[in-house]
Amino acid sequence: MTVDQLFKQIKEKESFLCVGLDTDFNKIPKILLDYEYPIFEFNRQIIDATADFTIAYKPNLAFYEVLGAAGWISLEMTVNYIRERYPEIFIIADAKRGDIGNTSKMYAQAFFEKMNFDAITVSPYMGSDSVVPFLEYPNKWVIVLALTSNAGADDFQQLIEQNSNSRFFEKVLRKSQHWGNEHNMMYVIGATRAEMLTLVREHAPRHFLLIPGVGAQGGSLAEVVKYGLNEKCGLIVNSSRAIIYADCTNDFAKVARAKANEVQEEMSQLLKQYNII
Amino acid sequence: MTVDQLFKQIKEKESFLCVGLDTDFNKIPKILLDYEYPIFEFNRQIIDATADFTIAYKPNLAFYEVLGAAGWISLEMTVNYIRERYPEIFIIADAKRGDIGNTSKMYAQAFFEKMNFDAITVSPYMGSDSVVPFLEYPNKWVIVLALTSNAGADDFQQLIEQNSNSRFFEKVLRKSQHWGNEHNMMYVIGATRAEMLTLVREHAPRHFLLIPGVGAQGGSLAEVVKYGLNEKCGLIVNSSRAIIYADCTNDFAKVARAKANEVQEEMSQLLKQYNII
Repeated sequence: MTVDQLFKQIKEKESFLCVGLDTDFNKIPKILLDYEYPIFEFNRQIIDATADFTIAYKPNLAFYEVLGAAGWISLEMTVNYIRERYPEIFIIADAKRGDIGNTSKMYAQAFFEKMNFDAITVSPYMGSDSVVPFLEYPNKWVIVLALTSNAGADDFQQLIEQNSNSRFFEKVLRKSQHWGNEHNMMYVIGATRAEMLTLVREHAPRHFLLIPGVGAQGGSLAEVVKYGLNEKCGLIVNSSRAIIYADCTNDFAKVARAKANEVQEEMSQLLKQYNII
Repeated sequence: MTVDQLFKQIKEKESFLCVGLDTDFNKIPKILLDYEYPIFEFNRQIIDATADFTIAYKPNLAFYEVLGAAGWISLEMTVNYIRERYPEIFIIADAKRGDIGNTSKMYAQAFFEKMNFDAITVSPYMGSDSVVPFLEYPNKWVIVLALTSNAGADDFQQLIEQNSNSRFFEKVLRKSQHWGNEHNMMYVIGATRAEMLTLVREHAPRHFLLIPGVGAQGGSLAEVVKYGLNEKCGLIVNSSRAIIYADCTNDFAKVARAKANEVQEEMSQLLKQYNII
């Protein structure tokens, strides 16, 4: 998918919402356990209910791997379902891989060829060859971890480098731009530190940013937009638990739709307020 | 597995060799393609041929994920086979995961409960909650990426922090010791920079180190031992391609055995030279 295709979808749906498919076997309605692939069935119903308001889906790999091969099959079925039914929607593998060159190449094959994801999240710790092999696929994307919002984020990402006087995550933003550009690379930036987005935008004004942490993890959408928006929106804001587990009865899909619609309406207002649409 | 069990195996086999199961569908002998799970069949024959000289096996997850669910099944079969047939052998998931707390917990379940790995490699970029959930399993191990030897290793790992005047990988070694200890945590240290091992041992004198990069990737075993050995050996040295692809004919397992034996003999001599056995 190209930047323009992504932006077109944002304008049409008046949304930059990504729904995180962190589908937990222990949290889905019991009635789904009768299906051969309950995780897929949950995802399918969530997808059909929310696709009108959603520009991206983001399965979190851990939730599939924990089920072994059956989980992997549910993941493949989910990707295929979105691809066939909603070909305009951007699909992100939240996999946080990151390895040496020949191994990264294998991961790229796994996620971009064997499965048909549009993007994968990658950890930058091992440097260039963790990222570059993914960039060789036209219209596919690497989403590099830069500044996260989890408990341990400050353990290393905020360290200040002696020579440049810049933080480690700033080095990641700068150095990675020698490997890719705003047409094949995005960054993960945690939403709970919206004020940091000003600094991020100094280094990466044109890149799309994947923002987790709005919703159950806290983080204000208005703040994210205020500091992070660019002329092509430049934001994909994720919400997982606040949407997919908004209700745990058999009405889960209906309630998820209402929640997604609620977020989309807030997004629509903000996009209008800042003259993006 | 405990440190003492690991050390017992090292003494008995006079070896600290780990064989990396980077099993590539395109590189295995064609005759194996007749099996339902060719990757498992290759692994099984390699394992039976090398187990006398090997204290650990390390499947590289990318090589299984690239085959989708069938790859995942081959991985599960491989782990189960080693566990049943060679219960003394240490099994490492070379997965390089690293995510927020609730996701790390899922990965821990996937690799330590659903599958019965002894250890998993983890990237430290996201800090404490990428690592800690794995430490809650008794006799299981986290192997934290510290100093790697790939092309991009110096992009970030060698950055010098302003306040402490120490390198980023040194910060990882120090900070992570607040989370775990030498009974549940190891470090990945690339073999191509053996002289760096002196610095690593200043920070982590008692931890086991997983050393990739001996063999096809270069790196001298004698140098690694000179700078990295501690009183319980403290080293697990990996070789993948130089052993498993030493021969690509139907004799592959026989040749792999000879290669593993060769490395083990060099290890035995070094262990004797330094009075470890």
